[in-house]
Amino acid sequence: MQTDSLDGKIRVVDIKASIFADNDAEADRIRERLKAENTCLINVMAGPGAGKTSVLKRTVEAIKDKLNIGVMEADIDSDVDARKIAESGVCCVQLHTGGMCHLDAGMTEQGLKELGFEKFDLCFLENVGNLVCPAEFDTGANYNVCILSVPEGHDKPLKYPLMFTVCDVLIINKIDAAEYFDFDMERVMEYALMRNPKLRIFPLSAKTGEGFEAWINWVMESAGK
Amino acid sequence: MQTDSLDGKIRVVDIKASIFADNDAEADRIRERLKAENTCLINVMAGPGAGKTSVLKRTVEAIKDKLNIGVMEADIDSDVDARKIAESGVCCVQLHTGGMCHLDAGMTEQGLKELGFEKFDLCFLENVGNLVCPAEFDTGANYNVCILSVPEGHDKPLKYPLMFTVCDVLIINKIDAAEYFDFDMERVMEYALMRNPKLRIFPLSAKTGEGFEAWINWVMESAGK
Repeated sequence: MQTDSLDGKIRVVDIKASIFADNDAEADRIRERLKAENTCLINVMAGPGAGKTSVLKRTVEAIKDKLNIGVMEADIDSDVDARKIAESGVCCVQLHTGGMCHLDAGMTEQGLKELGFEKFDLCFLENVGNLVCPAEFDTGANYNVCILSVPEGHDKPLKYPLMFTVCDVLIINKIDAAEYFDFDMERVMEYALMRNPKLRIFPLSAKTGEGFEAWINWVMESAGK
Repeated sequence: MQTDSLDGKIRVVDIKASIFADNDAEADRIRERLKAENTCLINVMAGPGAGKTSVLKRTVEAIKDKLNIGVMEADIDSDVDARKIAESGVCCVQLHTGGMCHLDAGMTEQGLKELGFEKFDLCFLENVGNLVCPAEFDTGANYNVCILSVPEGHDKPLKYPLMFTVCDVLIINKIDAAEYFDFDMERVMEYALMRNPKLRIFPLSAKTGEGFEAWINWVMESAGK
């Protein structure tokens, strides 16, 4: 595992393809270790540009005084996301996937080790920007969150069925831009709940903060605080 | 290959995982067959909700009186895209990938066969909404086009390097929404050209039609008309 130090704050870690044949068993093992350390791990998935980093930044800024938080930013290349999160003052590592389109449990474990997850109440994993492949791999997280943004359109649960099926929470971001796009909020909720009737849905704006209270409450409850 | 008829207009085709071990050789074979029939194939890639279908719809409406056009719409599920394109009156098939995150040459060939590509001057393939995996597979197309939309942000060429490297054209869509988003047009061009100095870049809006003339001219030239 190669680690570079940037600004003394951000570490960039090249994670390697997983060596575990049974991803589900490895994911369960990660959850056992998280439980033993009383750490909650939330896996955040979305297509490119839906606002994963912006939602996470506003979220950690809202709760960093109440919880110890660590963030893993996964991307194929660049460290732009880790730099954004580091502005909030929370601990953050940038994971480079070396071209891989998703994270599996073994890759997540490398990130958790690098982050030193034992010292945190709550860890976020920002998965690779992709509505398809990340949904296929259990990362070992306690909760899966999908972010869909208003400009992407309300038909996405019809077109990417697995993502909306495996998630516990759907955030609908960029609601501040709703008037400029032909986005039907009722319809997206109907389509998403068709995929997963237990889905919790939080419409919000990472730009204005509208709708964040309900989401933050869910995060605090999920972290058991 | 299973084919369903919908409204007598749209066919939904379940394409199967490719049987070809050497994707690049199969892609070259497709290009030879396209050349023999004087058909140009353009592969359109983008993340979810960047506006692939909207750009294609406006494009085929602008040139359908000059060229015979066929369209293949690939998606994991649903037929919403094929229905939109069919409104333009051009021939369209919906390809279902059965969960697959991309199309390879063998899968494209199944679509071309179903479409009956020999009768068209120009065929478009709308790939699965994904900025990662589709870039890894040569579909046999003559040209690769990537669409990035303004709400996704100008940092995407930094984060998805391969997509911007393998494309001949970058369309920057939804420029009508530029004032509502923190999008730096100069910077996205700089980042994209860093990946591929030969990239042709067309900023446009599929909603208002702004910027379409240059793109349409490129399509007509590329189709050899």
